[in-house]
Amino acid sequence: MDVVEFRPTPEQYAWTFGGVAPTHRIKPGTVLKLWTEDAFSGRITSTTDRPSAVLNMAEVNPQTGPFYVEGAEPGDTLALHIVDLTPARDWGASTTIPFFGGLTGTDRTALLNEPLPEQTWIYQVDRAAGTVRFEAQRGSLVIDLPLAPMLGTVGVAPPGREVRTSLVPDTFGGNMDTPEMKPGTTCYLGVNVEGALFSVGDGHYRQGEGESCGTAVEGAMDVTLIVELIKGGAPPWPRLEHDDHYAVVGSARPLEDAWRASQVGMIGWLGELYGLAELDAYQLLTQASKAPLANVVDVNYSALTLLEKSLLPAASAYDGMHAHLRSIAKGLS
Amino acid sequence: MDVVEFRPTPEQYAWTFGGVAPTHRIKPGTVLKLWTEDAFSGRITSTTDRPSAVLNMAEVNPQTGPFYVEGAEPGDTLALHIVDLTPARDWGASTTIPFFGGLTGTDRTALLNEPLPEQTWIYQVDRAAGTVRFEAQRGSLVIDLPLAPMLGTVGVAPPGREVRTSLVPDTFGGNMDTPEMKPGTTCYLGVNVEGALFSVGDGHYRQGEGESCGTAVEGAMDVTLIVELIKGGAPPWPRLEHDDHYAVVGSARPLEDAWRASQVGMIGWLGELYGLAELDAYQLLTQASKAPLANVVDVNYSALTLLEKSLLPAASAYDGMHAHLRSIAKGLS
Amino acid sequence: MDVVEFRPTPEQYAWTFGGVAPTHRIKPGTVLKLWTEDAFSGRITSTTDRPSAVLNMAEVNPQTGPFYVEGAEPGDTLALHIVDLTPARDWGASTTIPFFGGLTGTDRTALLNEPLPEQTWIYQVDRAAGTVRFEAQRGSLVIDLPLAPMLGTVGVAPPGREVRTSLVPDTFGGNMDTPEMKPGTTCYLGVNVEGALFSVGDGHYRQGEGESCGTAVEGAMDVTLIVELIKGGAPPWPRLEHDDHYAVVGSARPLEDAWRASQVGMIGWLGELYGLAELDAYQLLTQASKAPLANVVDVNYSALTLLEKSLLPAASAYDGMHAHLRSIAKGLS
Amino acid sequence: MDVVEFRPTPEQYAWTFGGVAPTHRIKPGTVLKLWTEDAFSGRITSTTDRPSAVLNMAEVNPQTGPFYVEGAEPGDTLALHIVDLTPARDWGASTTIPFFGGLTGTDRTALLNEPLPEQTWIYQVDRAAGTVRFEAQRGSLVIDLPLAPMLGTVGVAPPGREVRTSLVPDTFGGNMDTPEMKPGTTCYLGVNVEGALFSVGDGHYRQGEGESCGTAVEGAMDVTLIVELIKGGAPPWPRLEHDDHYAVVGSARPLEDAWRASQVGMIGWLGELYGLAELDAYQLLTQASKAPLANVVDVNYSALTLLEKSLLPAASAYDGMHAHLRSIAKGLS
Repeated sequence: MDVVEFRPTPEQYAWTFGGVAPTHRIKPGTVLKLWTEDAFSGRITSTTDRPSAVLNMAEVNPQTGPFYVEGAEPGDTLALHIVDLTPARDWGASTTIPFFGGLTGTDRTALLNEPLPEQTWIYQVDRAAGTVRFEAQRGSLVIDLPLAPMLGTVGVAPPGREVRTSLVPDTFGGNMDTPEMKPGTTCYLGVNVEGALFSVGDGHYRQGEGESCGTAVEGAMDVTLIVELIKGGAPPWPRLEHDDHYAVVGSARPLEDAWRASQVGMIGWLGELYGLAELDAYQLLTQASKAPLANVVDVNYSALTLLEKSLLPAASAYDGMHAHLRSIAKGLS
Repeated sequence: MDVVEFRPTPEQYAWTFGGVAPTHRIKPGTVLKLWTEDAFSGRITSTTDRPSAVLNMAEVNPQTGPFYVEGAEPGDTLALHIVDLTPARDWGASTTIPFFGGLTGTDRTALLNEPLPEQTWIYQVDRAAGTVRFEAQRGSLVIDLPLAPMLGTVGVAPPGREVRTSLVPDTFGGNMDTPEMKPGTTCYLGVNVEGALFSVGDGHYRQGEGESCGTAVEGAMDVTLIVELIKGGAPPWPRLEHDDHYAVVGSARPLEDAWRASQVGMIGWLGELYGLAELDAYQLLTQASKAPLANVVDVNYSALTLLEKSLLPAASAYDGMHAHLRSIAKGLS
Repeated sequence: MDVVEFRPTPEQYAWTFGGVAPTHRIKPGTVLKLWTEDAFSGRITSTTDRPSAVLNMAEVNPQTGPFYVEGAEPGDTLALHIVDLTPARDWGASTTIPFFGGLTGTDRTALLNEPLPEQTWIYQVDRAAGTVRFEAQRGSLVIDLPLAPMLGTVGVAPPGREVRTSLVPDTFGGNMDTPEMKPGTTCYLGVNVEGALFSVGDGHYRQGEGESCGTAVEGAMDVTLIVELIKGGAPPWPRLEHDDHYAVVGSARPLEDAWRASQVGMIGWLGELYGLAELDAYQLLTQASKAPLANVVDVNYSALTLLEKSLLPAASAYDGMHAHLRSIAKGLS
Repeated sequence: MDVVEFRPTPEQYAWTFGGVAPTHRIKPGTVLKLWTEDAFSGRITSTTDRPSAVLNMAEVNPQTGPFYVEGAEPGDTLALHIVDLTPARDWGASTTIPFFGGLTGTDRTALLNEPLPEQTWIYQVDRAAGTVRFEAQRGSLVIDLPLAPMLGTVGVAPPGREVRTSLVPDTFGGNMDTPEMKPGTTCYLGVNVEGALFSVGDGHYRQGEGESCGTAVEGAMDVTLIVELIKGGAPPWPRLEHDDHYAVVGSARPLEDAWRASQVGMIGWLGELYGLAELDAYQLLTQASKAPLANVVDVNYSALTLLEKSLLPAASAYDGMHAHLRSIAKGLS
């Protein structure tokens, strides 16, 4: 088994999906042990840091990668299994960035209101307790929230010759910002270009659904992934598999279109898994699907359709790829 | 304790929020034992029933009520505690209605596509097993899904002299279609008119988040409620309290506005519960809130912001109303 | 020819479509000479008036009417021809209302931003020059804009037992806020209840497309209308006919759905006028329709599909109703 | 005066904004005499051509260019003056493409409906009469519509290292698909990369507002442009200047955000032109702006805020650049 370890220097960060030469060429089956810088490129470190003063908006969401997967061709399916996510720092940060976030006017929802005040929250990590600490900026409320590490950004190079910033979620994955991208997840992405050219970044020590203010508990992350390749079978939208769930992520605006894409994506998957007709799958989702939001802040919003496996007959997505990767993952620890 | 039992005749159904004389005047503290007809007014009974042939679209979502609550004045808060929901029939029904649903053109998302085919699914209830049975119309897939009874529609008379059909969710509650409206829930609604004039209906034996095709497992329901009144404190959007969660329901189009309303509503509630400043509450929601969708099919779409109580310091919403109603509910069984 | 003159007292204003007893019963063919109060119910009179201090939000958009049209039944078409609109005052007013307008957070686009500052502009009318005067509140810019009187609100009672505030535009017309509702316009509305129960109000001395800040140059208006009734033929969305244009008004959120409704509405009308197949009409609109916005501020947004008659073969909508009403109108002056 | 003539071979077409080496380096002041292929890359030539059979969706909207403008740096303003647009063929084509267009489910508004039927309309050009001929596919309706040549696509390389397909409209211009991009227009675009790297394409012999079905009367075009450079002053959204109008184009989803961007963009321009305060400009637009839609079909929708110069005091945008270019243009003919 190939194991590749990589901690990029700042000069090695990628800022886009597509348009960047790979840092590594890897074989399917490779285990990656990566380090990812936080979404702020490490520039927010204190509650007195104001984003408009310290951030460089051209250098946010640095990506580790891209990785060229040997043999990956357009139409194939990349399977990325998240073995482990461990906070690489003892603190994370979140902040309100002017004209960014779900409850403020933005560059697109262009209004005449002043920006919200810039505030920064620093979350101390308690590894033993498995928590991060929220401390109110006004008043004295302190709340320890469970650590729940996830990757905001997992994506391949886009189709159609495009290059997109690492802030964008779309059919190619990218900045989906869903808490469901957590250890134990297998993420299936359609391959658009030779080598797939995937990268990861934007670790969150935890995040609510919707990522309301636009920044989660952002933190550098130690990431262990297994990379596999499935010939053919490219899904139209990113698919996630957990031990206990299937999920499809749709990304679009307005938000109902993100949800629609995830629903139609899941209807397609149910067709593959069970030979279920479209209208039957539509009916089944109507009664059985969970619909947690991912983000309502990014260039596209992201929504999930999530199905509990326990509700469904046994099935084997991609010939049991998830179970296969889980067993390999267990051998790693 | 007053107990009122009521099974309306078809002539007694209400079809609107507002604009209808109350069927009963009740005192705060009253226990209601109600029966609600299904959303189809009982007209869909077989897989061969086509909605365009058997439904009367002017008579869907029949309401039981409205109830005039003595002492309720505009600005007050109605607390409705759902003690029990028991399917009143041994089967439920779901169907695709032309130009209605989340994955089809509609009267508003007006397109030139033909309507989707009309299909009806009948779900048999297995009370012992606690399941409803999905049977695919094409192929042979059969899936037993857990019973999870809920009320699609809980609402008071609207503000501003309006009368709205029972198909509408809005600030007054109404057709929110969220699975979180289940036994054990206390629903807080702002009172807009004297007597509040609330009604309930649209029982679902279960429903996925989003209610994709527009109709859940619709079924007549035996409903036990406790009605309480809180002077003042009217919330801008419906609030739900479970033993383990707080939730706020926002209803609007596009879907992001439904979510925004629920978020701002929860920020207000956190301010009341903890004295939390707006930006601190925004930050806390960013890391802690769940955001399950309710429906993406109704006149307004509905989305929830949901917070686990276990993440938060102890608090007492509305002076412990939920705990109070829970203890009364226990005494009823 | 019946002529009815009516200047309502404040006690006679209607605040809703539906739910109000008619002020008059009239015969088809009646000429109405009406007075309408401004949208502020006359409470904004000076640049120092702050809406939050002087407005009663339960009493805005007062309607003159409703009028019961004898013989009007559901499924019929009401034809209202605007003969004349003359400002009834020498000044109009516009103002920024907190959390209302197109470029600010609102009750639905719920954000955490502070409201925009409240400012009031008073426009002096120069009848001889045919202008209203814009005077910047900061700086000295003064611009005389042409008078272009229109009615913001023209509507019938809604279907489905509903009662809607006079702030709402929908299939029943209502608060569409389009500059195309001007002298010379025939407005066709589907009748939903016996007698149609239409009312008018919300005169604008002029308005831009979109009505950005939410309030036009609002002013009391002297209104001359001719009322006609067409048996059957109820259009799904309001239709307008000018000497030189056909238009259909769609109202919904998000804005694309308002536009879609207007497009599909016009495709239907082209089918009636020319026997044009749906796809051919879709194609023709693609190359020929104008799409001016009406409002992006109301409960539903309103958008128009507008077709120049000069581009089309001669046709006779509703058996020449518009030409008929134009000739009667000429006889009135 | 430099004059550059260029008719690209198919191998020279650009398919993206950004990511392509320039075909020419030109000096500010250069006159370009270009030929642009139609949006279908010339593959639709007959009413029997079905898009799904003959189109290559990876090769639509071919661009002529990009052109590297010497001296252009990020933050500068590119001024492109359209001197002349002349149809280069005697016919244009329009077609319904599966899952593309404003009145059908699409890849983003993902629905379960079947695609609309594929139909192709061929429009014969009558140069003498100045018309294109619409011929209904069903029935016999024939309508001669005025020729109104425009460019669907005018754009520079995007910011943020992105490369976007030529199907996208955004802050960098691109596929805005507005009939206001016509002879006599000066288009001001902010420069994002050295040399600006602009290209043009997607000629329309005419187009309605909204471009409902997604394809206008598409045709190859002979294009005469003058290119100028303004140091600094980059507008946030594309600005257009005609002899008689100012306009700003916003592009986003949902459609209200496109309109909002155009409004806020115009408020900024009015501030530059007249020193008008934001709220005064908001008020002025409320009463004076036109809001024609451009397209409701592309990756982002596009909407315009348009102001008649005749309503405003005399002003000189960009130091009279438009008048300067008009006078040069007159010297060319």
